[in-house]
Amino acid sequence: MKQDLVISVDAMGGDLGPEMVIPGVDISLERHPGLRLILFGDEQQIAPLLEKYPRVRERSELVHTDVWVNMDDKPSQALRRGRRVSSMWLAIEAVKEQRASVAISAGNTGAWMVMAKFVLNTMPGISRPAMAAIWPTLRGESVVLDVGATIGADAELLVDFAIMGEAMARSLFGIERPTVGLLNVGVEEVKGVEYVRTAGRMLRNSQLPIEYYGFVEGDDLGRGTVDVVVTEGFTGNIALKTAEGTARQLASYLRAAMSRSWVSKLGYVLAKGAFAQLREKMDPRNSNGGVFLGLNGIVVKSHGGTDAVGFACAMDIAVDMARNDLVQKISKDLAAKQSLMEFVETGNGAANGAATSIAGEKA
Amino acid sequence: MKQDLVISVDAMGGDLGPEMVIPGVDISLERHPGLRLILFGDEQQIAPLLEKYPRVRERSELVHTDVWVNMDDKPSQALRRGRRVSSMWLAIEAVKEQRASVAISAGNTGAWMVMAKFVLNTMPGISRPAMAAIWPTLRGESVVLDVGATIGADAELLVDFAIMGEAMARSLFGIERPTVGLLNVGVEEVKGVEYVRTAGRMLRNSQLPIEYYGFVEGDDLGRGTVDVVVTEGFTGNIALKTAEGTARQLASYLRAAMSRSWVSKLGYVLAKGAFAQLREKMDPRNSNGGVFLGLNGIVVKSHGGTDAVGFACAMDIAVDMARNDLVQKISKDLAAKQSLMEFVETGNGAANGAATSIAGEKA
Repeated sequence: MKQDLVISVDAMGGDLGPEMVIPGVDISLERHPGLRLILFGDEQQIAPLLEKYPRVRERSELVHTDVWVNMDDKPSQALRRGRRVSSMWLAIEAVKEQRASVAISAGNTGAWMVMAKFVLNTMPGISRPAMAAIWPTLRGESVVLDVGATIGADAELLVDFAIMGEAMARSLFGIERPTVGLLNVGVEEVKGVEYVRTAGRMLRNSQLPIEYYGFVEGDDLGRGTVDVVVTEGFTGNIALKTAEGTARQLASYLRAAMSRSWVSKLGYVLAKGAFAQLREKMDPRNSNGGVFLGLNGIVVKSHGGTDAVGFACAMDIAVDMARNDLVQKISKDLAAKQSLMEFVETGNGAANGAATSIAGEKA
Repeated sequence: MKQDLVISVDAMGGDLGPEMVIPGVDISLERHPGLRLILFGDEQQIAPLLEKYPRVRERSELVHTDVWVNMDDKPSQALRRGRRVSSMWLAIEAVKEQRASVAISAGNTGAWMVMAKFVLNTMPGISRPAMAAIWPTLRGESVVLDVGATIGADAELLVDFAIMGEAMARSLFGIERPTVGLLNVGVEEVKGVEYVRTAGRMLRNSQLPIEYYGFVEGDDLGRGTVDVVVTEGFTGNIALKTAEGTARQLASYLRAAMSRSWVSKLGYVLAKGAFAQLREKMDPRNSNGGVFLGLNGIVVKSHGGTDAVGFACAMDIAVDMARNDLVQKISKDLAAKQSLMEFVETGNGAANGAATSIAGEKA
């Protein structure tokens, strides 16, 4: 039997706080009986819930905190008030002190990110961490990063994201050589912004053990053309929310269409099973859970507006990442990169020169 | 009765060329009987089609060209080969020489853009043109720009896009004061990249007659939160293609769900009318047609892969833009901006200073 895995949970996170988190943890314990938890938060709110969920009570240690971060606190505010004392801070500290393998919260994303960076620090060689999302595709699922942790990037940062995303895809999907693509506005080498083109050449020419596919476009995300899609956080965040918005829009069209006459309503009733399957496919809860990559520890972010089912899904990801030693995998790959990158940088100077003239032609 | 409107058509554009364009023009003539056309392209291919579509033959003048641009030509190549002689070039030249009010092509986007810029030039005060798309939303339609003409932008360019997009929304939707939002990764003033925040302050503080809403996020696109969404071309292009990809993905889930059992198939048959309505809503042909804004003339781009119905839809947009004197509207607004911007720039220095400290806090 595997050793118990310990997850530290910010029980105060999410729009509904402990009322959503504790039932979510309960579902997760049903799926992963070997799990143990450290719950951080307000005892007064959490203790009565533990009475209702004896399985959670049995498998967890509750650490009371007087302070927690609100969903609309500014990260700087949260850090000032919550440092060393808040449920978020302490949940992450448990990972730093190796009392837990991974920390999870459905709380304020900005605050969670800032605290995670503050407590765990970035890995050697990584300038900025990324947030990776799991994107449902026609082929299954892909890892997409960064979806909003960084704003702006350079070529080297994108290469780091590629390395980290690739390691995550290996852990999550259990495939040996996941394919990696760079998000761009066209697939030809001359397309797009300079730093994306440079990153493309670096990945293409490097000796890194990465299956680099090339550029992909926005519609390749849903198609699942590659296992890992790499982009900078501003664009990644907008792409993610655009896809979520489009899915909601089409679901609303479908509802309206199905209720427009009694015949279509009858059709709906007959096709109910099919719709249930469709709903399952489209359910954002099933791909809930972002992972911060590039820190000395694993930190998972659940959607703030999710319910217990969605939170359990984010817990699944946390379990997967921890069981597969994601941080170890990434450190190993980053270490390998250091030696391989010297080679690339030599080649890169020349490649850069060529690119300038190609870029000029693009106009 | 209105005066005849003349549209110049690159008859060689699109994956299927004249075989798609001529039937598309035919549909358009049915809808707009007052239309006249100048068709540019290979007589050998077009003439037989005109026999089949007498309505098109009757209302158009055919100008033979020996040269046309291929879908996969590089823009620079296309310009070298196609200058002064290609169907694309001549279609745009007809607008410059005021023989036509608007030019349309379903051909190579890059080449079409480069030639349009070359022949028509940008309007006074506009550094780079934009491509605006019409985005179907839960509330109707929005104008989204730029979806790929520019890569990278600064605050002033975004303000120009806002002015041009607003004028287009007035022409297209017939509303007096369309709302305008800037695409960002959060709605708070401190969120996102510096140039987007600066553009936000410029629009907020300016005396421009623009109904500035504030920042919007990716999921506001499908929701139709504002009438005009302004962004830089790299992000805009990725958002557009991500939405298209998501729509295709969900349509494919729906098809699979509906054919999984005989009961769901029966349900599908009963709900056929509803599905037809849904298909209509989701049909990308119904929002086909991008408009290049910021040039001394109107140039419309149809999807290359569309069919006659989709091309007719792009023709509708061309007609709307021309009938509403879009170029006039934009020049007027840009002229007004010149005087109003002095005011903004004074205020802007101070605002910039404040922003730096706020940005520092974001971390």
